[in-house]
Amino acid sequence: MDEGKLKGKKVAILTSEMYEDLELWYPYFRMKEEGAEVEVVSMIESPLEVMGRHYYPLKTDKSVEEARAGDYQALIVPGGYAPDMLRRSEEVLDLVRAICEAGKPVGALCQGSMVLAAAGVLKGKKASAKVPVQKEIEKSSRVPQEIKWQDQDLTVDGNIITARTKQALPDFSRALLQMLSRKFSPR
Amino acid sequence: MDEGKLKGKKVAILTSEMYEDLELWYPYFRMKEEGAEVEVVSMIESPLEVMGRHYYPLKTDKSVEEARAGDYQALIVPGGYAPDMLRRSEEVLDLVRAICEAGKPVGALCQGSMVLAAAGVLKGKKASAKVPVQKEIEKSSRVPQEIKWQDQDLTVDGNIITARTKQALPDFSRALLQMLSRKFSPR
Repeated sequence: MDEGKLKGKKVAILTSEMYEDLELWYPYFRMKEEGAEVEVVSMIESPLEVMGRHYYPLKTDKSVEEARAGDYQALIVPGGYAPDMLRRSEEVLDLVRAICEAGKPVGALCQGSMVLAAAGVLKGKKASAKVPVQKEIEKSSRVPQEIKWQDQDLTVDGNIITARTKQALPDFSRALLQMLSRKFSPR
Repeated sequence: MDEGKLKGKKVAILTSEMYEDLELWYPYFRMKEEGAEVEVVSMIESPLEVMGRHYYPLKTDKSVEEARAGDYQALIVPGGYAPDMLRRSEEVLDLVRAICEAGKPVGALCQGSMVLAAAGVLKGKKASAKVPVQKEIEKSSRVPQEIKWQDQDLTVDGNIITARTKQALPDFSRALLQMLSRKFSPR
Protein backbone atom coordinates (compact mmCIF):
# COMPACT_ATOMS: atom_id res chain seq x y z
CA MET A 1 0.00 0.00 0.00
CA ASP A 2 0.90 3.57 -0.65
CA GLU A 3 1.99 4.59 2.82
CA GLY A 4 2.86 8.13 3.80
CA LYS A 5 2.14 9.64 0.39
CA LEU A 6 1.69 13.02 2.06
CA LYS A 7 4.65 12.80 4.43
CA GLY A 8 6.10 16.24 5.07
CA LYS A 9 2.96 17.96 3.75
CA LYS A 10 0.65 20.11 5.84
CA VAL A 11 -3.10 20.42 5.39
CA ALA A 12 -5.25 23.13 7.02
CA ILE A 13 -8.80 22.46 8.16
CA LEU A 14 -10.64 25.75 8.59
CA THR A 15 -13.48 25.64 11.09
CA SER A 16 -15.05 26.99 14.26
CA GLU A 17 -17.83 26.30 16.79
CA MET A 18 -20.65 24.04 15.56
CA TYR A 19 -18.63 22.40 12.80
CA GLU A 20 -20.12 19.31 11.15
CA ASP A 21 -18.47 16.54 13.11
CA LEU A 22 -17.90 13.90 10.44
CA GLU A 23 -17.09 16.40 7.69
CA LEU A 24 -14.20 17.50 9.88
CA TRP A 25 -13.03 14.24 11.42
CA TYR A 26 -13.12 12.05 8.33
CA PRO A 27 -10.72 14.21 6.31
CA TYR A 28 -8.72 14.89 9.50
CA PHE A 29 -7.88 11.22 10.10
CA ARG A 30 -7.73 10.46 6.37
CA MET A 31 -4.99 13.02 5.72
CA LYS A 32 -3.12 11.68 8.76
CA GLU A 33 -3.45 8.16 7.39
CA GLU A 34 -1.49 9.36 4.33
CA GLY A 35 1.19 10.84 6.56
CA ALA A 36 0.19 14.52 6.34
CA GLU A 37 0.34 16.91 9.24
CA VAL A 38 -3.10 18.41 9.88
CA GLU A 39 -3.71 21.79 11.51
CA VAL A 40 -7.13 22.95 12.62
CA VAL A 41 -7.31 26.68 11.98
CA SER A 42 -10.07 28.69 13.61
CA MET A 43 -11.09 32.29 14.23
CA ILE A 44 -10.68 31.71 17.91
CA GLU A 45 -7.48 32.11 19.89
CA SER A 46 -5.92 28.67 19.93
CA PRO A 47 -5.50 26.06 21.32
CA LEU A 48 -9.10 26.00 22.43
CA GLU A 49 -11.84 23.40 22.50
CA VAL A 50 -14.78 23.95 20.15
CA MET A 51 -17.85 21.76 19.74
CA GLY A 52 -19.29 20.06 16.71
CA ARG A 53 -22.98 20.51 15.92
CA HIS A 54 -23.26 16.92 17.18
CA TYR A 55 -21.10 17.90 20.17
CA TYR A 56 -17.91 16.11 19.31
CA PRO A 57 -15.17 18.16 21.03
CA LEU A 58 -12.22 19.38 18.95
CA LYS A 59 -9.02 21.17 19.87
CA THR A 60 -8.03 23.90 17.44
CA ASP A 61 -4.35 24.37 16.63
CA LYS A 62 -4.06 27.90 15.33
CA SER A 63 -6.00 31.10 14.93
CA VAL A 64 -6.41 32.41 11.42
CA GLU A 65 -4.16 35.36 12.30
CA GLU A 66 -1.31 32.98 13.09
CA ALA A 67 -1.85 30.73 10.05
CA ARG A 68 0.31 31.35 6.98
CA ALA A 69 -1.06 30.28 3.61
CA GLY A 70 2.41 29.29 2.39
CA ASP A 71 2.67 26.57 5.06
CA TYR A 72 -0.18 24.50 3.64
CA GLN A 73 -0.45 22.23 0.60
CA ALA A 74 -4.24 22.04 0.81
CA LEU A 75 -7.24 23.56 2.56
CA ILE A 76 -10.42 21.80 3.74
CA VAL A 77 -13.57 23.64 4.90
CA PRO A 78 -16.09 21.31 6.61
CA GLY A 79 -19.76 22.29 6.90
CA GLY A 80 -22.08 22.75 9.87
CA TYR A 81 -22.86 26.19 11.30
CA ALA A 82 -19.19 27.22 11.51
CA PRO A 83 -18.98 28.49 7.89
CA ASP A 84 -21.66 31.10 8.54
CA MET A 85 -19.35 32.62 11.17
CA LEU A 86 -16.13 32.08 9.24
CA ARG A 87 -17.39 33.90 6.15
CA ARG A 88 -17.68 37.17 8.13
CA SER A 89 -13.96 37.30 8.91
CA GLU A 90 -11.66 39.15 6.49
CA GLU A 91 -8.66 37.17 7.78
CA VAL A 92 -10.46 33.93 6.96
CA LEU A 93 -11.29 35.10 3.45
CA ASP A 94 -7.70 36.28 2.89
CA LEU A 95 -6.37 32.85 3.89
CA VAL A 96 -8.84 31.07 1.58
CA ARG A 97 -7.95 33.32 -1.34
CA ALA A 98 -4.20 32.97 -0.77
CA ILE A 99 -4.31 29.16 -0.73
CA CYS A 100 -6.77 28.93 -3.61
CA GLU A 101 -5.02 31.44 -5.85
CA ALA A 102 -1.73 29.56 -5.36
CA GLY A 103 -3.46 26.69 -7.20
CA LYS A 104 -3.42 24.38 -4.19
CA PRO A 105 -6.31 21.95 -3.66
CA VAL A 106 -9.22 23.53 -1.78
CA GLY A 107 -12.11 21.33 -0.68
CA ALA A 108 -15.43 22.33 0.89
CA LEU A 109 -18.20 20.14 2.27
CA CYS A 110 -21.84 21.21 2.38
CA GLN A 111 -22.08 24.69 3.99
CA GLY A 112 -18.28 24.95 3.77
CA SER A 113 -18.79 26.26 0.23
CA MET A 114 -20.25 29.38 1.79
CA VAL A 115 -16.76 30.40 2.88
CA LEU A 116 -15.35 29.82 -0.60
CA ALA A 117 -18.18 31.88 -2.13
CA ALA A 118 -17.61 34.73 0.33
CA ALA A 119 -13.92 34.71 -0.59
CA GLY A 120 -14.95 35.06 -4.24
CA VAL A 121 -13.15 31.93 -5.39
CA LEU A 122 -16.30 30.17 -6.67
CA LYS A 123 -16.97 32.95 -9.19
CA GLY A 124 -17.82 31.33 -12.53
CA LYS A 125 -16.98 27.88 -11.15
CA LYS A 126 -18.93 24.64 -11.08
CA ALA A 127 -19.84 23.47 -7.56
CA SER A 128 -22.07 21.01 -5.70
CA ALA A 129 -24.42 22.00 -2.87
CA LYS A 130 -27.91 21.12 -1.74
CA VAL A 131 -30.53 23.58 -3.00
CA PRO A 132 -31.09 25.26 0.42
CA VAL A 133 -27.33 25.74 0.76
CA GLN A 134 -27.17 27.20 -2.76
CA LYS A 135 -29.84 29.71 -1.76
CA GLU A 136 -28.06 30.56 1.51
CA ILE A 137 -24.84 31.11 -0.39
CA GLU A 138 -26.49 33.33 -2.97
CA LYS A 139 -28.10 35.44 -0.27
CA SER A 140 -25.04 35.62 1.96
CA SER A 141 -22.38 36.22 -0.63
CA ARG A 142 -20.93 39.71 -0.60
CA VAL A 143 -19.37 39.22 -4.01
CA PRO A 144 -21.79 39.01 -6.93
CA GLN A 145 -20.94 35.78 -8.68
CA GLU A 146 -22.37 33.22 -11.02
CA ILE A 147 -21.82 29.79 -9.53
CA LYS A 148 -22.64 26.94 -11.90
CA TRP A 149 -24.45 24.59 -9.51
CA GLN A 150 -24.18 20.92 -10.37
CA ASP A 151 -26.88 18.44 -9.45
CA GLN A 152 -24.42 15.81 -8.24
CA ASP A 153 -22.69 14.63 -5.04
CA LEU A 154 -19.24 15.95 -5.88
CA THR A 155 -17.81 18.50 -8.26
CA VAL A 156 -14.19 19.14 -9.16
CA ASP A 157 -13.47 22.39 -11.01
CA GLY A 158 -9.79 23.24 -11.34
CA ASN A 159 -8.30 23.02 -7.86
CA ILE A 160 -11.67 23.30 -6.11
CA ILE A 161 -13.59 20.27 -4.82
CA THR A 162 -17.10 20.69 -3.45
CA ALA A 163 -19.23 17.99 -1.83
CA ARG A 164 -23.00 18.19 -1.45
CA THR A 165 -23.33 16.24 1.82
CA LYS A 166 -21.29 14.00 4.10
CA GLN A 167 -22.41 11.02 2.04
CA ALA A 168 -19.83 12.22 -0.49
CA LEU A 169 -16.97 11.95 2.03
CA PRO A 170 -15.38 8.87 0.39
CA ASP A 171 -15.46 10.50 -3.08
CA PHE A 172 -14.33 13.83 -1.68
CA SER A 173 -11.34 12.25 -0.04
CA ARG A 174 -10.47 10.22 -3.15
CA ALA A 175 -10.59 13.38 -5.30
CA LEU A 176 -8.52 15.41 -2.86
CA LEU A 177 -5.87 12.71 -2.54
CA GLN A 178 -5.68 12.31 -6.31
CA MET A 179 -5.18 16.04 -6.68
CA LEU A 180 -2.56 16.13 -3.94
CA SER A 181 -0.61 13.20 -5.32
CA ARG A 182 -0.67 14.61 -8.86
CA LYS A 183 0.93 17.73 -7.47
CA PHE A 184 3.26 16.29 -4.90
CA SER A 185 4.18 12.71 -5.75
CA PRO A 186 7.82 12.20 -6.71
CA ARG A 187 7.09 10.80 -10.18
CA MET B 1 -4.57 5.77 -6.88
CA ASP B 2 -5.76 2.36 -5.92
CA GLU B 3 -9.50 2.85 -6.44
CA GLY B 4 -12.11 0.34 -5.47
CA LYS B 5 -9.67 -2.20 -4.05
CA LEU B 6 -12.50 -3.68 -1.99
CA LYS B 7 -15.15 -3.63 -4.70
CA GLY B 8 -17.56 -6.53 -4.25
CA LYS B 9 -16.43 -7.08 -0.65
CA LYS B 10 -18.65 -6.62 2.38
CA VAL B 11 -17.51 -5.42 5.79
CA ALA B 12 -19.61 -5.69 8.98
CA ILE B 13 -19.47 -3.07 11.70
CA LEU B 14 -20.87 -4.49 14.92
CA THR B 15 -22.31 -1.92 17.29
CA SER B 16 -25.29 -0.65 19.26
CA GLU B 17 -26.53 2.36 21.27
CA MET B 18 -23.80 4.67 22.62
CA TYR B 19 -21.17 3.62 20.10
CA GLU B 20 -18.02 5.76 19.89
CA ASP B 21 -18.89 8.08 17.03
CA LEU B 22 -15.54 8.47 15.28
CA GLU B 23 -14.46 4.87 15.87
CA LEU B 24 -17.51 3.88 13.88
CA TRP B 25 -17.69 6.55 11.21
CA TYR B 26 -14.03 6.70 10.24
CA PRO B 27 -13.79 3.01 9.27
CA TYR B 28 -17.32 3.22 7.82
CA PHE B 29 -16.43 5.89 5.26
CA ARG B 30 -12.89 4.53 4.81
CA MET B 31 -14.10 1.09 3.72
CA LYS B 32 -16.59 2.79 1.39
CA GLU B 33 -13.76 4.88 -0.06
CA GLU B 34 -12.11 1.60 -1.10
CA GLY B 35 -15.33 0.42 -2.71
CA ALA B 36 -16.51 -1.99 -0.03
CA GLU B 37 -20.12 -2.38 0.99
CA VAL B 38 -20.52 -1.69 4.70
CA GLU B 39 -23.28 -3.13 6.88
CA VAL B 40 -23.95 -1.95 10.40
CA VAL B 41 -24.99 -4.97 12.43
CA SER B 42 -26.65 -4.45 15.80
CA MET B 43 -28.51 -6.39 18.47
CA ILE B 44 -31.56 -4.31 17.74
CA GLU B 45 -34.20 -5.02 15.12
CA SER B 46 -33.07 -3.12 12.06
CA PRO B 47 -33.24 -0.65 10.39
CA LEU B 48 -33.33 1.53 13.46
CA GLU B 49 -31.60 4.71 14.53
CA VAL B 50 -29.13 4.43 17.39
CA MET B 51 -27.09 7.22 18.98
CA GLY B 52 -23.37 7.60 19.44
CA ARG B 53 -22.03 8.50 22.87
CA HIS B 54 -21.46 11.92 21.30
CA TYR B 55 -25.00 11.75 19.86
CA TYR B 56 -24.22 11.24 16.21
CA PRO B 57 -27.25 9.35 14.84
CA LEU B 58 -26.68 6.10 12.93
CA LYS B 59 -29.01 3.83 11.03
CA THR B 60 -28.34 0.14 11.58
CA ASP B 61 -28.71 -2.23 8.63
CA LYS B 62 -29.19 -5.64 10.16
CA SER B 63 -29.80 -7.38 13.45
CA VAL B 64 -27.24 -9.94 14.52
CA GLU B 65 -29.83 -12.69 14.04
CA GLU B 66 -30.12 -11.77 10.36
CA ALA B 67 -26.38 -11.37 9.76
CA ARG B 68 -24.51 -14.31 8.26
CA ALA B 69 -20.78 -14.58 8.98
CA GLY B 70 -20.12 -15.97 5.51
CA ASP B 71 -21.30 -12.72 3.89
CA TYR B 72 -18.48 -10.62 5.35
CA GLN B 73 -14.80 -10.33 4.49
CA ALA B 74 -13.99 -8.42 7.67
CA LEU B 75 -15.47 -7.35 11.00
CA ILE B 76 -14.98 -4.06 12.86
CA VAL B 77 -16.04 -3.47 16.47
CA PRO B 78 -15.91 0.23 17.47
CA GLY B 79 -15.74 1.26 21.13
CA GLY B 80 -17.98 3.41 23.31
CA TYR B 81 -20.54 1.90 25.67
CA ALA B 82 -22.03 -0.37 23.01
CA PRO B 83 -19.50 -3.22 23.53
CA ASP B 84 -20.58 -3.66 27.14
CA MET B 85 -24.08 -4.52 25.85
CA LEU B 86 -22.91 -6.49 22.83
CA ARG B 87 -20.74 -8.85 24.89
CA ARG B 88 -23.84 -10.15 26.73
CA SER B 89 -25.45 -11.51 23.56
CA GLU B 90 -24.69 -15.09 22.55
CA GLU B 91 -25.64 -14.29 18.91
CA VAL B 92 -23.08 -11.49 18.88
CA LEU B 93 -20.37 -13.76 20.26
CA ASP B 94 -21.25 -16.50 17.74
CA LEU B 95 -20.91 -14.02 14.87
CA VAL B 96 -17.55 -12.75 16.15
CA ARG B 97 -16.21 -16.28 16.55
CA ALA B 98 -17.44 -17.39 13.14
CA ILE B 99 -15.76 -14.47 11.33
CA CYS B 100 -12.58 -14.66 13.39
CA GLU B 101 -12.16 -18.41 13.16
CA ALA B 102 -12.52 -18.21 9.38
CA GLY B 103 -9.25 -16.24 9.47
CA LYS B 104 -10.88 -13.02 8.24
CA PRO B 105 -9.59 -9.67 9.51
CA VAL B 106 -11.23 -8.63 12.79
CA GLY B 107 -10.54 -5.16 14.17
CA ALA B 108 -11.56 -3.66 17.50
CA LEU B 109 -11.14 -0.14 18.80
CA CYS B 110 -10.85 0.74 22.49
CA GLN B 111 -13.73 -0.96 24.39
CA GLY B 112 -14.54 -2.92 21.23
CA SER B 113 -11.93 -5.46 22.40
CA MET B 114 -14.32 -6.36 25.20
CA VAL B 115 -16.52 -8.12 22.65
CA LEU B 116 -13.57 -10.04 21.21
CA ALA B 117 -12.50 -11.10 24.70
CA ALA B 118 -16.03 -12.26 25.60
CA ALA B 119 -16.08 -14.33 22.41
CA GLY B 120 -12.83 -15.94 23.55
CA VAL B 121 -10.87 -14.97 20.44
CA LEU B 122 -8.25 -12.91 22.32
CA LYS B 123 -7.12 -15.95 24.33
CA GLY B 124 -3.33 -16.04 24.30
CA LYS B 125 -3.20 -13.13 21.84
CA LYS B 126 -1.38 -9.82 21.92
CA ALA B 127 -3.70 -6.79 22.04
CA SER B 128 -3.72 -3.04 22.73
CA ALA B 129 -6.04 -1.36 25.20
CA LYS B 130 -5.84 1.41 27.77
CA VAL B 131 -5.20 0.11 31.29
CA PRO B 132 -8.77 0.81 32.55
CA VAL B 133 -10.16 -1.04 29.52
CA GLN B 134 -7.79 -3.95 30.17
CA LYS B 135 -9.14 -4.15 33.72
CA GLU B 136 -12.77 -3.95 32.56
CA ILE B 137 -12.11 -6.72 30.06
CA GLU B 138 -10.46 -8.94 32.63
CA LYS B 139 -13.35 -8.46 35.04
CA SER B 140 -16.10 -8.84 32.44
CA SER B 141 -14.74 -11.75 30.48
CA ARG B 142 -16.63 -14.97 30.96
CA VAL B 143 -13.84 -17.01 29.42
CA PRO B 144 -10.64 -17.27 31.48
CA GLN B 145 -7.89 -16.07 29.16
CA GLU B 146 -4.41 -14.67 29.17
CA ILE B 147 -4.32 -11.62 26.97
CA LYS B 148 -0.82 -10.30 26.29
CA TRP B 149 -1.43 -6.57 26.64
CA GLN B 150 0.86 -4.38 24.60
CA ASP B 151 1.79 -0.88 25.70
CA GLN B 152 1.32 0.61 22.23
CA ASP B 153 -1.34 2.32 20.07
CA LEU B 154 -1.99 -0.60 17.76
CA THR B 155 -1.38 -4.33 17.83
CA VAL B 156 -1.73 -6.85 15.04
CA ASP B 157 -1.73 -10.50 16.06
CA GLY B 158 -2.67 -12.91 13.31
CA ASN B 159 -5.95 -11.68 11.85
CA ILE B 160 -6.81 -9.53 14.88
CA ILE B 161 -6.13 -5.78 14.99
CA THR B 162 -6.69 -3.86 18.23
CA ALA B 163 -6.40 -0.10 18.68
CA ARG B 164 -5.94 1.59 22.04
CA THR B 165 -7.83 4.82 21.30
CA LYS B 166 -9.31 6.73 18.38
CA GLN B 167 -5.94 8.43 17.90
CA ALA B 168 -4.87 5.14 16.30
CA LEU B 169 -7.62 5.33 13.64
CA PRO B 170 -5.21 6.12 10.77
CA ASP B 171 -2.90 3.20 11.72
CA PHE B 172 -5.85 0.91 12.36
CA SER B 173 -7.28 1.60 8.95
CA ARG B 174 -3.89 1.16 7.24
CA ALA B 175 -3.39 -2.21 8.97
CA LEU B 176 -6.89 -3.41 8.14
CA LEU B 177 -6.59 -2.42 4.48
CA GLN B 178 -3.19 -4.08 4.20
CA MET B 179 -4.64 -7.27 5.63
CA LEU B 180 -7.67 -7.12 3.35
CA SER B 181 -5.64 -6.47 0.23
CA ARG B 182 -3.18 -9.26 1.04
CA LYS B 183 -6.14 -11.60 1.18
CA PHE B 184 -8.28 -10.29 -1.61
CA SER B 185 -6.20 -8.42 -4.19
CA PRO B 186 -6.06 -10.16 -7.57
CA ARG B 187 -2.24 -10.52 -7.63
